[in-house]
Amino acid sequence: MSKGTVVLAYSGGLDTSCILVWLKEQGYDVIAYLANIGQDEDFEAARKKAESLGAKKVFIEDLRSQFVENFIWPAVQANAVYEDRYLMGTAVARPCIARRQVEIARREGAQFVSHGATGKGNDQIRFELTCYALYPEIIAPWRIPEFYNRFRGRTDLMEYAQSHAPADLYLMTKNPEDSPNEPDVLEIAFKNGVPVRVTNVKENKSEDTPLDIFSYLNEIGGKHGVGRIDIVENRFIGMKSRGIYETPGGTVLLNAHLDIETFTMDKEVRRIKQGLGIRFSELVYNGFWDSPECDFVRHCIAKSQENVEGKVQLSVFKGQVYILGRESPKSLYNEELVSMDVQGNYDPCDASGFIRINAVRVNYHQLEAKVALLHYSCV
Amino acid sequence: MSKGTVVLAYSGGLDTSCILVWLKEQGYDVIAYLANIGQDEDFEAARKKAESLGAKKVFIEDLRSQFVENFIWPAVQANAVYEDRYLMGTAVARPCIARRQVEIARREGAQFVSHGATGKGNDQIRFELTCYALYPEIIAPWRIPEFYNRFRGRTDLMEYAQSHAPADLYLMTKNPEDSPNEPDVLEIAFKNGVPVRVTNVKENKSEDTPLDIFSYLNEIGGKHGVGRIDIVENRFIGMKSRGIYETPGGTVLLNAHLDIETFTMDKEVRRIKQGLGIRFSELVYNGFWDSPECDFVRHCIAKSQENVEGKVQLSVFKGQVYILGRESPKSLYNEELVSMDVQGNYDPCDASGFIRINAVRVNYHQLEAKVALLHYSCV
Amino acid sequence: MSKGTVVLAYSGGLDTSCILVWLKEQGYDVIAYLANIGQDEDFEAARKKAESLGAKKVFIEDLRSQFVENFIWPAVQANAVYEDRYLMGTAVARPCIARRQVEIARREGAQFVSHGATGKGNDQIRFELTCYALYPEIIAPWRIPEFYNRFRGRTDLMEYAQSHAPADLYLMTKNPEDSPNEPDVLEIAFKNGVPVRVTNVKENKSEDTPLDIFSYLNEIGGKHGVGRIDIVENRFIGMKSRGIYETPGGTVLLNAHLDIETFTMDKEVRRIKQGLGIRFSELVYNGFWDSPECDFVRHCIAKSQENVEGKVQLSVFKGQVYILGRESPKSLYNEELVSMDVQGNYDPCDASGFIRINAVRVNYHQLEAKVALLHYSCV
Amino acid sequence: MSKGTVVLAYSGGLDTSCILVWLKEQGYDVIAYLANIGQDEDFEAARKKAESLGAKKVFIEDLRSQFVENFIWPAVQANAVYEDRYLMGTAVARPCIARRQVEIARREGAQFVSHGATGKGNDQIRFELTCYALYPEIIAPWRIPEFYNRFRGRTDLMEYAQSHAPADLYLMTKNPEDSPNEPDVLEIAFKNGVPVRVTNVKENKSEDTPLDIFSYLNEIGGKHGVGRIDIVENRFIGMKSRGIYETPGGTVLLNAHLDIETFTMDKEVRRIKQGLGIRFSELVYNGFWDSPECDFVRHCIAKSQENVEGKVQLSVFKGQVYILGRESPKSLYNEELVSMDVQGNYDPCDASGFIRINAVRVNYHQLEAKVALLHYSCV
Repeated sequence: MSKGTVVLAYSGGLDTSCILVWLKEQGYDVIAYLANIGQDEDFEAARKKAESLGAKKVFIEDLRSQFVENFIWPAVQANAVYEDRYLMGTAVARPCIARRQVEIARREGAQFVSHGATGKGNDQIRFELTCYALYPEIIAPWRIPEFYNRFRGRTDLMEYAQSHAPADLYLMTKNPEDSPNEPDVLEIAFKNGVPVRVTNVKENKSEDTPLDIFSYLNEIGGKHGVGRIDIVENRFIGMKSRGIYETPGGTVLLNAHLDIETFTMDKEVRRIKQGLGIRFSELVYNGFWDSPECDFVRHCIAKSQENVEGKVQLSVFKGQVYILGRESPKSLYNEELVSMDVQGNYDPCDASGFIRINAVRVNYHQLEAKVALLHYSCV
Repeated sequence: MSKGTVVLAYSGGLDTSCILVWLKEQGYDVIAYLANIGQDEDFEAARKKAESLGAKKVFIEDLRSQFVENFIWPAVQANAVYEDRYLMGTAVARPCIARRQVEIARREGAQFVSHGATGKGNDQIRFELTCYALYPEIIAPWRIPEFYNRFRGRTDLMEYAQSHAPADLYLMTKNPEDSPNEPDVLEIAFKNGVPVRVTNVKENKSEDTPLDIFSYLNEIGGKHGVGRIDIVENRFIGMKSRGIYETPGGTVLLNAHLDIETFTMDKEVRRIKQGLGIRFSELVYNGFWDSPECDFVRHCIAKSQENVEGKVQLSVFKGQVYILGRESPKSLYNEELVSMDVQGNYDPCDASGFIRINAVRVNYHQLEAKVALLHYSCV
Repeated sequence: MSKGTVVLAYSGGLDTSCILVWLKEQGYDVIAYLANIGQDEDFEAARKKAESLGAKKVFIEDLRSQFVENFIWPAVQANAVYEDRYLMGTAVARPCIARRQVEIARREGAQFVSHGATGKGNDQIRFELTCYALYPEIIAPWRIPEFYNRFRGRTDLMEYAQSHAPADLYLMTKNPEDSPNEPDVLEIAFKNGVPVRVTNVKENKSEDTPLDIFSYLNEIGGKHGVGRIDIVENRFIGMKSRGIYETPGGTVLLNAHLDIETFTMDKEVRRIKQGLGIRFSELVYNGFWDSPECDFVRHCIAKSQENVEGKVQLSVFKGQVYILGRESPKSLYNEELVSMDVQGNYDPCDASGFIRINAVRVNYHQLEAKVALLHYSCV
Repeated sequence: MSKGTVVLAYSGGLDTSCILVWLKEQGYDVIAYLANIGQDEDFEAARKKAESLGAKKVFIEDLRSQFVENFIWPAVQANAVYEDRYLMGTAVARPCIARRQVEIARREGAQFVSHGATGKGNDQIRFELTCYALYPEIIAPWRIPEFYNRFRGRTDLMEYAQSHAPADLYLMTKNPEDSPNEPDVLEIAFKNGVPVRVTNVKENKSEDTPLDIFSYLNEIGGKHGVGRIDIVENRFIGMKSRGIYETPGGTVLLNAHLDIETFTMDKEVRRIKQGLGIRFSELVYNGFWDSPECDFVRHCIAKSQENVEGKVQLSVFKGQVYILGRESPKSLYNEELVSMDVQGNYDPCDASGFIRINAVRVNYHQLEAKVALLHYSCV
């Protein structure tokens, strides 16, 4: 008799294939679930493999559009970067994948969900916090001694294979040394802080749906070797780990969004929003996408983006993104005000008072000396 | 009869030459003061020019070592970046220059200091807050109507000249498109969060004084076109302005320091220190280097750097800095702990409890469902 | 010929009466404007005085309801307290008063607004930043040498009179030593983080409009001597000044709101909102009520209040507010979950894992010892 | 044969007595350890009880002085308050108790430490994080099913008894309704942000060691019913729980320290330190006293206290603390500067420029109107 049905987040790889078999051995019915979030994979081959291993059903779900619109776009609005460097592609994907998994579990009447994330990593948390927020029970084999004691050997092998094959490491980006000797020049149009069109200026080619925009930025960014990093990061559970990541499209967008945001957003709103963006990044990294506080922060950040609108021109070349210029109907930049030669209605005298008032506190005890005034009217 | 003596921060350029002459016309004795903070300039030609314009004395002060040690190094420790992008070379230089100017004013018995910073910019504030903190009276001609109404014409001319000569814009960095097709590989050794040696790995060349290290990083960074940015920034006085900057050495150091810091610093100390670094950057940008709060923040940041020690390997290529690896006697990275195959003393079971406790709050009302336990001992 | 029309924020007191006369002497037409925000004042006497001093028109505006709803209520939602102690009654009133003044200036075609705030205080800034945000030109006599040099003598006198009459200091609150020996017990109902009804439990008396609620809380709080403070505070312009304040109704509301908020708001949302509340308080104190960043923060805080709903019971006695209990349909408090004797679906075992994972980082180098496990299944 | 030796944090009460017996039944040798941190308890009776239940050894440790100096004083410097209301007496005591327990375990060669904190509370975490930071293995019976399933009945009984005897709830504070009708007036002298003497002004009685000062403040505060609160708080593990606390001495000190700190500390240092104090409070509440980040924050806070020196006069009456005045050799308060009648070297004109520059950003698009200047020289 079956112990119940498990919806397993299945990748087609060695790990989750082992888990599928093991779950069946333990007496569960298994539904294999593959999420297509844009990775390069032979989904039909994975389907056949799952079926041959005994999956009762296999679901291959195209989540690409909702991944871009509902997960990547809010991260773009937030300038989401963990520990000053990591753009968190994986962290943003987990809740997207888990939400659909829970939907399938509900629809199919499954009692359990399961995944192949290991017991020392961040992904187990990202996955499970979303599941717990939505309801089901979780089987995490890599935390079950019966499982991990049995399969450790194969993992050793697999890990070894991976760690001795660094050529595979970067899938999306070219080595900058081998990338084109000519830059591509892009113009990205934003509205409400998210991209609404990308244009390759030289080729006069445009994309304007979220998925197409993001895919194209991944393609062009990847072609020029943009977005590779080798970092040590602090996992939520307190370990440091080394990570090698590539985020070509995300890196282009981060640069472009930072630029249009500073161009159109009030200085002090920006300061407050910067703090919220850091908080958002920590929450997402730690797996709290589906939490009250992350909902709250996302709402506040989205509010801040209402005037983040306009176009950014940039070139992509040899691993680097260069901002070339920007324009916006909502710009707060005032060329005349800022000009040295046109006084406009700005009175430089005011700066004297501004500075002296700021100085009152800076050196309280020498105040006598400080505020003594010159004979010029406003120096 | 003289109205008193003014120490003028003199650059040798058109602006401060006009100011020198005008101050004399107004009845002041003028001491010209040139600070050498590493800029490419013919100091002796400037000395002669100042003398020919009627300066009573001319002081040319080599501040390069103290600029690097006392101003750039604390900024490196802080990962100082204003509004996520600007590395603030100028902002860090102003208090260094102003401090010596006040020293000269005191030593020479001058009643006033003066500078050529304009009335709409940040530099007037950076300059004057340091002066006020230390004591003297300030003459700021660009805020005196008698001055700026008279000289506006010439300035227009000069500005025009500058704005139509963008070739001069970058003085330290090559255009990445024209930079070498071979990377340079550097190893930077840190102690207490500041660099203590840089080695060019291929050329087996090393530098180990602060000034030599920084100069060499400027040279290598510049050769590879590192650190150019074109941004719109928010000035302290509330205007947005466009800035085009190059910070080759600073950009290399920011990348290297971020890396060794994350490698050696506790995760939660890092979070708190990140917030202090942002505050530090705002203070420095706004001109508050010499203020109680900036002293306090610098002290706290320096404290956080006690274990930031080790070596970072990186390559510099076509405008980009790539971290290749790092090592440290103070590393908190534990390869065994993090390994998927070696369990060590870490019990994956613990992660189950950790996640479930974190989930308690995430969806309070569905708690019943959430904490229902599987029959496996620790899932 | 008139230099134009000035709308003067007139109080009926010595200061603004002097200003009224002086403005007329200078050649302006003066419209006197008195804002009724609930202060105890003979408005008709003030009207007659203004007219007798030569005011062209006199406007007495009842702003009480909008003051409570649009200014005090957002401050309640924010738990607005400056420097941990000051509830900022005055700071919240200024933008309310200034907004109407600008409306009058527009309607009456006046070119100028004017006020009696002094040149060293916060109120000049609070007043003028709102005016500048809305448009008009400002005459601030206390910063005009021709004015303050002439009237200093009278001010000296007036100040002297004030400083030697401390009996008048507290207008709304009784001395706690003389307050009733029996507490009043109140129940305050909240919705969206603002009070919607107050009930005096013993007297079975209720109020349920914003103005009536706030007035009643001022009355009861004042009767029991609640909300008196004697503090030194940091003015925006960098001086420290001593202030003696009374905020009876505000103090009762702060206590009640803190209680219902913690009862109904998610823990982590609360932490983020606490930071926003501190920022809000600084902005309001400094005069930035009408600024992009204060609009943004108010929006975020209002969003956080959607579930802040329920009733708080409290007693008011001898200067102190005691929370007696609270209830809410939106409570996140779960008596069973928290009980020591009912396990519910919470598994204490999970806490072991939670603690051990939190300990991983706390003492990295002693990890061996730390994660060694006992023989009990989940200790 | 013994399974090893356990040092048990023993209170003399029912819970830890049960644990003592149960540990012996399980085959451990038990050392009972009682920490005297100032609680009202018959330590000799507890010693006899422990011995009669089979403790191998009993240690009664007087930690009162180190508790005040090393734990309460840093909390005073931080103005430590959790969630705006809770002064965390218990949270501060746990690491103090646990440190000594680990010392005893080391000295006596014990393999284990144990405690009676329950599986849903904060104290288990506070206790164990300190233990893990220092090294030993922990037995937490309330998280061991064999224990809690057996003893639940007794606990029910005990809990019932406790919950039906609220008269015992407040041990240190009088009901304010029954407290004296005359205030006590105290003067507290601070140095480096901690109290160095307390004087009862009317009785001319002084205390000047940390323990005596704190004990006396507890006595006087308790006599006047100061520091009672009834709150709902958010536990670290994500539950909300109701707590009823009394902190008489701590409440007096919080008020006095806030006052002398604002009087002597630079405004902007204070803002940064306020943020660090909130972080410190969260860390302490959550049990991270012995962590790298709490060490760091404590260091920074201590640095901020170098000038926090002077005397605060206050009265204690009917549950309330009233600040009467303060004085300090390090005061940044400058009576002349702040005076309305003495201009000093402060030029009110400067405030015009200060305000106008702050207004530049507030309403960018209406700039034309805003910065139009009046004909008065500096309005």
